[in-house]
Amino acid sequence: MGLMSESLTQILIPLAALIGIGFALLQWFLVSKVRVSGGSELDSEYNDKLIEEDGQEEGIDSDVVVAKCAEIQKAISEGATSFLFTEYKYLGIFMVVFGAIIFLFLGSVKSFSTESEPCTFNKENICKPALANAFFTTIAFLLGGLTSALSGFLGMKIATYANARTTLEARKSIGKAFTTAFRSGAVMGFLLAANGLLVLYVSINLFKLYYGDDWEGLYESITGYGLGGSSMALFGRVGGGIYTKAADVGADLVGKVERNIPEDDPRNPAVIADNVGDNVGDIAGMGSDLFGSYAESSCAALFVASISSFGSSHDYSAMSYPLIISSMGIVVCLITTLFATNMFEIKKVTEIEPSLKRQLLISTILMTVGIAFVSFFTLPSEFTIFDFGSDKVVKNWHLFFCVSIGLWAGLVIGYTTEYYTSSAYSPVQDVADSCRTGAATNVIFGLALGYKSVIIPIFAIAASIYVSFNLAAMYGIAVAALGMLSTIATGLAIDAYGPISDNAGGIAEMAGMNHSIRERTDALDAAGNTTAAIGKGFAIESAALVSLALFGAYVSRAGIKTVDVLAPKVFIGLIVGAMLPYWFSAMTMKSVGSAALKMVEEVRRQFNTIPGLMEGTAKPDYATCVKISTDASLKEMIPPGALVMLTPLIAGTFFGVETLAGLLAGSLVSGVQVAISASNTGGAWDNAKKYIEAGATEHARTLGPKGSDAHKAAVIGDTVGDPLKDTSGPSLNILIKLMAVESLVFAPFFATHGGLLFKLL
Amino acid sequence: MGLMSESLTQILIPLAALIGIGFALLQWFLVSKVRVSGGSELDSEYNDKLIEEDGQEEGIDSDVVVAKCAEIQKAISEGATSFLFTEYKYLGIFMVVFGAIIFLFLGSVKSFSTESEPCTFNKENICKPALANAFFTTIAFLLGGLTSALSGFLGMKIATYANARTTLEARKSIGKAFTTAFRSGAVMGFLLAANGLLVLYVSINLFKLYYGDDWEGLYESITGYGLGGSSMALFGRVGGGIYTKAADVGADLVGKVERNIPEDDPRNPAVIADNVGDNVGDIAGMGSDLFGSYAESSCAALFVASISSFGSSHDYSAMSYPLIISSMGIVVCLITTLFATNMFEIKKVTEIEPSLKRQLLISTILMTVGIAFVSFFTLPSEFTIFDFGSDKVVKNWHLFFCVSIGLWAGLVIGYTTEYYTSSAYSPVQDVADSCRTGAATNVIFGLALGYKSVIIPIFAIAASIYVSFNLAAMYGIAVAALGMLSTIATGLAIDAYGPISDNAGGIAEMAGMNHSIRERTDALDAAGNTTAAIGKGFAIESAALVSLALFGAYVSRAGIKTVDVLAPKVFIGLIVGAMLPYWFSAMTMKSVGSAALKMVEEVRRQFNTIPGLMEGTAKPDYATCVKISTDASLKEMIPPGALVMLTPLIAGTFFGVETLAGLLAGSLVSGVQVAISASNTGGAWDNAKKYIEAGATEHARTLGPKGSDAHKAAVIGDTVGDPLKDTSGPSLNILIKLMAVESLVFAPFFATHGGLLFKLL
Repeated sequence: MGLMSESLTQILIPLAALIGIGFALLQWFLVSKVRVSGGSELDSEYNDKLIEEDGQEEGIDSDVVVAKCAEIQKAISEGATSFLFTEYKYLGIFMVVFGAIIFLFLGSVKSFSTESEPCTFNKENICKPALANAFFTTIAFLLGGLTSALSGFLGMKIATYANARTTLEARKSIGKAFTTAFRSGAVMGFLLAANGLLVLYVSINLFKLYYGDDWEGLYESITGYGLGGSSMALFGRVGGGIYTKAADVGADLVGKVERNIPEDDPRNPAVIADNVGDNVGDIAGMGSDLFGSYAESSCAALFVASISSFGSSHDYSAMSYPLIISSMGIVVCLITTLFATNMFEIKKVTEIEPSLKRQLLISTILMTVGIAFVSFFTLPSEFTIFDFGSDKVVKNWHLFFCVSIGLWAGLVIGYTTEYYTSSAYSPVQDVADSCRTGAATNVIFGLALGYKSVIIPIFAIAASIYVSFNLAAMYGIAVAALGMLSTIATGLAIDAYGPISDNAGGIAEMAGMNHSIRERTDALDAAGNTTAAIGKGFAIESAALVSLALFGAYVSRAGIKTVDVLAPKVFIGLIVGAMLPYWFSAMTMKSVGSAALKMVEEVRRQFNTIPGLMEGTAKPDYATCVKISTDASLKEMIPPGALVMLTPLIAGTFFGVETLAGLLAGSLVSGVQVAISASNTGGAWDNAKKYIEAGATEHARTLGPKGSDAHKAAVIGDTVGDPLKDTSGPSLNILIKLMAVESLVFAPFFATHGGLLFKLL
Repeated sequence: MGLMSESLTQILIPLAALIGIGFALLQWFLVSKVRVSGGSELDSEYNDKLIEEDGQEEGIDSDVVVAKCAEIQKAISEGATSFLFTEYKYLGIFMVVFGAIIFLFLGSVKSFSTESEPCTFNKENICKPALANAFFTTIAFLLGGLTSALSGFLGMKIATYANARTTLEARKSIGKAFTTAFRSGAVMGFLLAANGLLVLYVSINLFKLYYGDDWEGLYESITGYGLGGSSMALFGRVGGGIYTKAADVGADLVGKVERNIPEDDPRNPAVIADNVGDNVGDIAGMGSDLFGSYAESSCAALFVASISSFGSSHDYSAMSYPLIISSMGIVVCLITTLFATNMFEIKKVTEIEPSLKRQLLISTILMTVGIAFVSFFTLPSEFTIFDFGSDKVVKNWHLFFCVSIGLWAGLVIGYTTEYYTSSAYSPVQDVADSCRTGAATNVIFGLALGYKSVIIPIFAIAASIYVSFNLAAMYGIAVAALGMLSTIATGLAIDAYGPISDNAGGIAEMAGMNHSIRERTDALDAAGNTTAAIGKGFAIESAALVSLALFGAYVSRAGIKTVDVLAPKVFIGLIVGAMLPYWFSAMTMKSVGSAALKMVEEVRRQFNTIPGLMEGTAKPDYATCVKISTDASLKEMIPPGALVMLTPLIAGTFFGVETLAGLLAGSLVSGVQVAISASNTGGAWDNAKKYIEAGATEHARTLGPKGSDAHKAAVIGDTVGDPLKDTSGPSLNILIKLMAVESLVFAPFFATHGGLLFKLL
């Protein structure tokens, strides 16, 4: 037994979650002090003060500007809310249907019998009937879906609450704007991390009322939580990704390229859809995604732990090790956030990126100490882990190493991503330089950069897999994934910071603020592109570890002893699995392309038919563009969604557990590469364009200014990168995770009834 | 024992090879009847005749045109010859050094002992010492390298001999031009297939003089032949690919985009380098590549057979089954060729593609009959195959199915490739249509097309793997690969046809022939793009099967019983292996990009400094551009080459045979996808551009003409596709194969001395 008592564990976990929520609310309160009152509700005192401070900048029309910001914010917020409600309505139906499938498939394992059975792993114990597991898995699935939707929705609300406030603060100073954007990101990060932990904790305790000592069944059912979370995340990412990029690409192609008006110009009919897209895709989608990763890695770790000596000796504190790690993570991130918001003040544009980078470093260092602490107090000094048929003896400091290596691999990946996507380093500068000879060389150099950027992350992940696998088998992998995600609150904060800044820039442009404000928000946004790439890097790499852990759990649960590449059944799974990321990317990219074409036609139509639009005397019809994005994303998210959801079911049912195992391994090792390269290529193109626009160095000025041939080539690269970095790339990590968790949930069914085709032959 | 006697086998194999060579020489003779006499050596009789026939087209300046063609052909031929000599000089040094490494590594397995030992698989027999195997493997390696170089060189000679002749025939009719181009392709196809078979056959018989009854040692040494062939092919493909695309991209970026002069305009200083590149990259490189595939699949099949009951019962005819299949292939292809050159005549442009497609179909149908014949006469009705530790009983009709499924999978892949890269179908037309909204959507749609095009080939390959693996274990896979490659002569003929037509078009432009001639060569070339993509598809898919067979042979030889993904050693190999194609592509694409930038600078410099160049009164300095391509390709081929050659050595020596097995599986399943998508994306972009230029349909005309915005966007896509389809993509199949065959050759060393790092830890 570990040193920490069960009752202390029972107190500490919810306490940490509540602290996280409290901290999030505090940050929200601080952000809310920036007043955005539109129209008649102008807060004259505050505005007077503003005018006093920056009178020279904005002059007397400050009231008008604030009112305009409020109006735009409202439009964005309403658009995003309405889209999410529509999306969730459809997804609600999907969840109910798929929940029924889960119940039927899992219930059929023992022919819907209500009798208790000997447990699968610990044959001496008696476990609850398979029908109960089917029922509770379905409940957990719905809970996971609900929490995921809530996470996305909350994130979106916060982001649309913060964007205009960031714009207004940008009038005062770059530092104040940065703090507002970052605090808002933190609200989202902490709410999601704490909320995910709390729901999981409460569910486990409620399920325990029924399951009692049958921990095997309990944690088997809990895996449904991960599946629910990721299913919602899949549609959120894909739907949101198509929405945002259809609008973005469509707006840019007509606005920037044909009409030569700036990005986010209010005359562009697609501009509201574009800004709504940032919030539903990059914020809500990403929130659901990372919540899914977190839920799955917890579930994978808990499931593997339940069939270890923790489970058989009913050591609650040790069993809750994954949850305690996450609790510690919330506390560590809280301290880390204070470094950004309270201890250092950003005075110059060049300080933004280092400040965000510092967040990663601080949280990693503090968390390493935290992990040591948790490992020592909650784990017994020695215990055994199930290792595909045999038992493996593990020491508590082994687990410390597993979690830590995951955590530090995350840092390495974060820094590598930054190197390849920030305009401060040579890779992006080389890409910018290649724009000299046109769009073709820009695309060639960008693709090559993306390919190259996978090398270090893959070595980092291979090293963490090797070490944690050797130390603690699949449990080691699962906690390594948790280690990478333990600082999720900070990760999400710096990730959400990106789209918030992007929107802030959009609002500044639309509200007609002057050039110097837009420069500040552009600088915030450029750093945001890098942090968004870092966030995606984290999401992808953690997905790789999570998937591997889920894969291990699936293999254990399906009763497979080896996954031998030399068996034809496995090999065909492996090669087809490696193909799936391509199939999926083809679908999503084509969807974005087609939706963007529709958007282009509509935008062109409006420019051609609405008199006075280009002169700014008439207002464009924003609603039609919003509708195009909404319809396209809701329709187009179905085929890729079906591909991901149906593949494990078809492979397992018709080809059996071994082909499915091969398929999971194949899609994992191939998907990681496609996802990383797509996300970094896109980030690099975006920042290469910004590098030319900003013209901050001698070299950059030789390529610019805006409108030069090199800049036009850079815009093309940026547009190509949009679906890569915001639709295909980030959705792929959900593909990997989701297929693995779905296989895990359905494993008992496949093991009993699967492989129909081979049985027939 | 099979029905065919040993002596009959000994006669039939070399006979088929000689028939192939004879047929190639006959075709060469027919091509040579088109006279290209330059300057003073004008053959007046022939020219008179030409003028008579097409007087209305070329008019009285026919002599001048013929002379110009001859001159250009000479320049291209000399440039290509000089590059290949330089390249082979460096590669000669590499071969000697690597040969020494092979000898030392393999010799060290038994500490350079000269004593005979019990055999590895058949312990009752006595085998020759490891030192002898080391020696003969080295010899086979050098022979393979030499044959590969010869194949590339011969192909290049034929192509540069045929290009101007095709141009001249294009003045008469499209059918005559097609026949000339196709015959020349056939010369190359038959020479390579026959030559590869003959050298292998002679080597086996010579080696047998020493080895006698030790077939295990004999066919172990013969694997060196495959390694030698593929090593040369790697550098040929990479070096040639960089050469051709640096020139092509560089020429297009300044010529077409900046100066607005047509492709292949003689005023462009890079135009000769571009045409030389087609011959050293697409022809010589591809010849070496497919020869390598052929050599490796034969070696893999022979090695696996040597440890089967054929080997232990010394059944020579059954043992030679792979060689007899290839012999039958030559005969079948010979008949197939007659259909294209003698039975149907091409009268219209639209008949070209169907005619080439018909070649695939005819050869596949005939070959199926041939395989049945060979399987029945050479194989015993039942025999046993080694299957990773156990024996498997196989019947002769099982092998018929294995070879046939490989063959038919090749046809499916060929047709799929055609569908995705030919402008006759909707995928390419959609890509062309997306040019309406600019280069960005073109690139997005093109990438999506490439991703999508992997789906069917992967299912085809998975099905053939599953069936042949189940029927005859790894021997089944090896002969399925052979089945796919059995019609290599036809495959190479239609593949080589592409660059020959491309060059023919270039010569027509440079010689100042009139527009209608250029239209004909363009039509030939457009079909050539599709067939080149088909050829690449064949090369990639056969490489996948070959690699799997080699992988199986490696696993057998290294004494591995299972390659379990659940072992951390294997999994890290798998994920790092899946990363290698990206690393490799990053290197090659960056190399092309950098070399193209240098080329652009030089071309710009010449346009700016040579007075009268744009007006056509001064000649550009072609030699400097040739030198830039030569230097860049020789320098830049080293890092990717080193990556491929060193990775198996490092992985095997430091991480051991299991990690290496994972690495091979990972690079195989991931590399296939990258290679197919890259090659098809590039082909589709090229043909989308040609579709707009040709303006053959109502839809195409709305996008054109040349110089329209849509056409400019299409040119950008084409340029991006160049390094994808001609450098990275096709090189990747060599990466896959080469790492596998290298692992096979070094397996005894790794099994004895490998895994240093894990031994130390």
